[in-house]
Amino acid sequence: MRIMTVNGKRLWNSLMDMAQTGASIGGGSNRVELTDEDKEGRELFIGWCRQDGFDVSIDAMGNIFARYGEADHDLPPVVVGSHLDTQPRGGRFDGVYGVLAGLELIRTLKENGVKTRRPIDVAVWTNEEGSRFNQPMLGSRFFTGRCTLEEARAFRDAAGISVGEELNRLGYEGTADRAALGVSTYVEVHIEQGPILYQTGQQIGVVLGVNGISGFDINLEGATCHAATTPIPMRRDALLGAARIIDQVHSLGASLEPNGRASSASLRVTPNVHNVVAGTVSMKADVRHRYPDSLREAETKLQDIVHDTARQTGLSVEMTQYGRSEPIQFDLEAAGIVRDVVGHLGYSHVDIMSGAGHDACNLSFFAPTIMIFIPCKDGLSHNEAEWTEPEDAERGCNVLLNSVLKFAN
Amino acid sequence: MRIMTVNGKRLWNSLMDMAQTGASIGGGSNRVELTDEDKEGRELFIGWCRQDGFDVSIDAMGNIFARYGEADHDLPPVVVGSHLDTQPRGGRFDGVYGVLAGLELIRTLKENGVKTRRPIDVAVWTNEEGSRFNQPMLGSRFFTGRCTLEEARAFRDAAGISVGEELNRLGYEGTADRAALGVSTYVEVHIEQGPILYQTGQQIGVVLGVNGISGFDINLEGATCHAATTPIPMRRDALLGAARIIDQVHSLGASLEPNGRASSASLRVTPNVHNVVAGTVSMKADVRHRYPDSLREAETKLQDIVHDTARQTGLSVEMTQYGRSEPIQFDLEAAGIVRDVVGHLGYSHVDIMSGAGHDACNLSFFAPTIMIFIPCKDGLSHNEAEWTEPEDAERGCNVLLNSVLKFAN
Repeated sequence: MRIMTVNGKRLWNSLMDMAQTGASIGGGSNRVELTDEDKEGRELFIGWCRQDGFDVSIDAMGNIFARYGEADHDLPPVVVGSHLDTQPRGGRFDGVYGVLAGLELIRTLKENGVKTRRPIDVAVWTNEEGSRFNQPMLGSRFFTGRCTLEEARAFRDAAGISVGEELNRLGYEGTADRAALGVSTYVEVHIEQGPILYQTGQQIGVVLGVNGISGFDINLEGATCHAATTPIPMRRDALLGAARIIDQVHSLGASLEPNGRASSASLRVTPNVHNVVAGTVSMKADVRHRYPDSLREAETKLQDIVHDTARQTGLSVEMTQYGRSEPIQFDLEAAGIVRDVVGHLGYSHVDIMSGAGHDACNLSFFAPTIMIFIPCKDGLSHNEAEWTEPEDAERGCNVLLNSVLKFAN
Repeated sequence: MRIMTVNGKRLWNSLMDMAQTGASIGGGSNRVELTDEDKEGRELFIGWCRQDGFDVSIDAMGNIFARYGEADHDLPPVVVGSHLDTQPRGGRFDGVYGVLAGLELIRTLKENGVKTRRPIDVAVWTNEEGSRFNQPMLGSRFFTGRCTLEEARAFRDAAGISVGEELNRLGYEGTADRAALGVSTYVEVHIEQGPILYQTGQQIGVVLGVNGISGFDINLEGATCHAATTPIPMRRDALLGAARIIDQVHSLGASLEPNGRASSASLRVTPNVHNVVAGTVSMKADVRHRYPDSLREAETKLQDIVHDTARQTGLSVEMTQYGRSEPIQFDLEAAGIVRDVVGHLGYSHVDIMSGAGHDACNLSFFAPTIMIFIPCKDGLSHNEAEWTEPEDAERGCNVLLNSVLKFAN
């Protein structure tokens, strides 16, 4: 296998330049979807593409596609991409890295005069974060036919402004119908947004899918009583029930690792007064898993924990599901190709699941899809202090380049 | 032993009449210390005493003493009493019952022409609740020399008005020096303000003392991380630590019963977001015990639980004592006399400790002291729905009457 490498310095410079659009006071970026800052980031990207002679198309949802190869190629393209929008005061790498690694990929191919059998599109998906319009991954959702254009345009922000109005105002109602071309393989590189690679010192994560999640609201009812005057056996202490559930959720989570996890991270105690035994606790707990059957099993175990504990502590309980999504499996063949590339590049790697959702989730319903993770410092993301090392960014981009060459030929 | 009995109907009527002063909308009473409503309650009581020919004295802190027997008797009196002030929207019985049972006691003695060797004073202590001026049991505190008049008068409410100013405004700066007379025995009857008598169906509690308490603020520090992306073994989950502490505090409490208890009833989680593993938990926990040595042991066990759990869960911890009071022991000889009287009356009874503080705590440093509890519905107190049955009120008053006859002869 012949190995090519990207220009790591050029990639890094483009990341730092992009971070200047909507630069936030704490060193991050503030390019919330469909704001003027988001537009500024898009124009910077499109300017770079046109400067280098890549054809740019925009679809009705403002998704941007920069093409390497003939504009009217017969074969469905390999699509690489991610997003340029950020959380309010977000980081420099979440999404941006996947887009600019794509740009670095096609710049490298062009520089080296490499011809590929299939064309390559670098995609910028509109509104991945969903922090202003309450539906994340909206551009890729539309692209993959998982919602209509009308539905997508109808989402409104807190001020009542719709996605459609902002697309119009910013000049991003394009006419290209790129989904009609199909996608032969979709590849997204991204910072991990978790601590596994960083803490274990692995350089590349081959992402096999996104864990499914099932989350529950749990309401425990006991009885308030005076802590000074009520003997322990006469209490119905809602906080005791909550504590035992939290401990058992932790044990369940430990038993599900590495393919699943379980968490309980928030609760409210009423009356929450040191001298009054807790009458009510409202809390949340969730289970996550890589495999659909195991997710269902974990849900049953969580329900048993809650109901058994309530019975044992004399509490009444209501437990309602607030959200559920099935696990998403990426393409195993594509994963094998990426693993092979990583081996040839001599990088350390692990197979990994994503906890968070990505545009790749939508694409996985549409085409063979794979993701590649690089480490981020302390696993921190959605934070101005989000950081990855230049060498890690370069390594991820080299994996992308050589994998895409395989997918495209 | 010759047994006398009180007029239960008269006692009950006086309770219901007193409840009309400062009557609150939910069926309770609202006679917060040193307000116009408190004064109204005092005047009603003094009016009843004078009507029945009992001599009334008021000391510098507004404590009221209604005497049965010669005003200038040589021997120190038996003092019975409690308080007429209530919590904001408090109940009809807390404190009031002890005062009006005392009045019923001396009315019965007078009616029957009973002469006692020692005089009997019915005391109304100023500001027992401390809900306006932040020092409960203030009148009995002054009386027993545990604070000076200047200190007691200097407490201010939220509006900046002092105890001294209110005593002056309401006309309750008396001149009697009643503490100088001494107290031969102090007896206080009270609703239990807890569930033990009510739930076990016992009619009388012989109160042996007030549990000591030691309370701690506990601050647990872990690290926030994303629940979706952070494997369980990489977490430092402050809520897990808190949960394990709560469960062990419960076990400690169960092991201390019936002479002690332990509680943890309030906590705050940061950031308290379902998707973010808890970085910080601030919580409180306390231990209570009847015996000083056992209280110290329980404190050590609580500290061990907290520090061991923090170490096992990888958290850092700060633990600081926010309050401590030593156990108070009432007079065992007096308890024996009360128990004997209860037996002669044929009432069921248990020995019991008080969880809450009472004026009797201050008096116990000054004279042989005993308390008598009667049941209250569901153990509820400091609440407009506070309730005791007329028969229970009568039984407690009969125990008071016959015990005082023994103490006074």
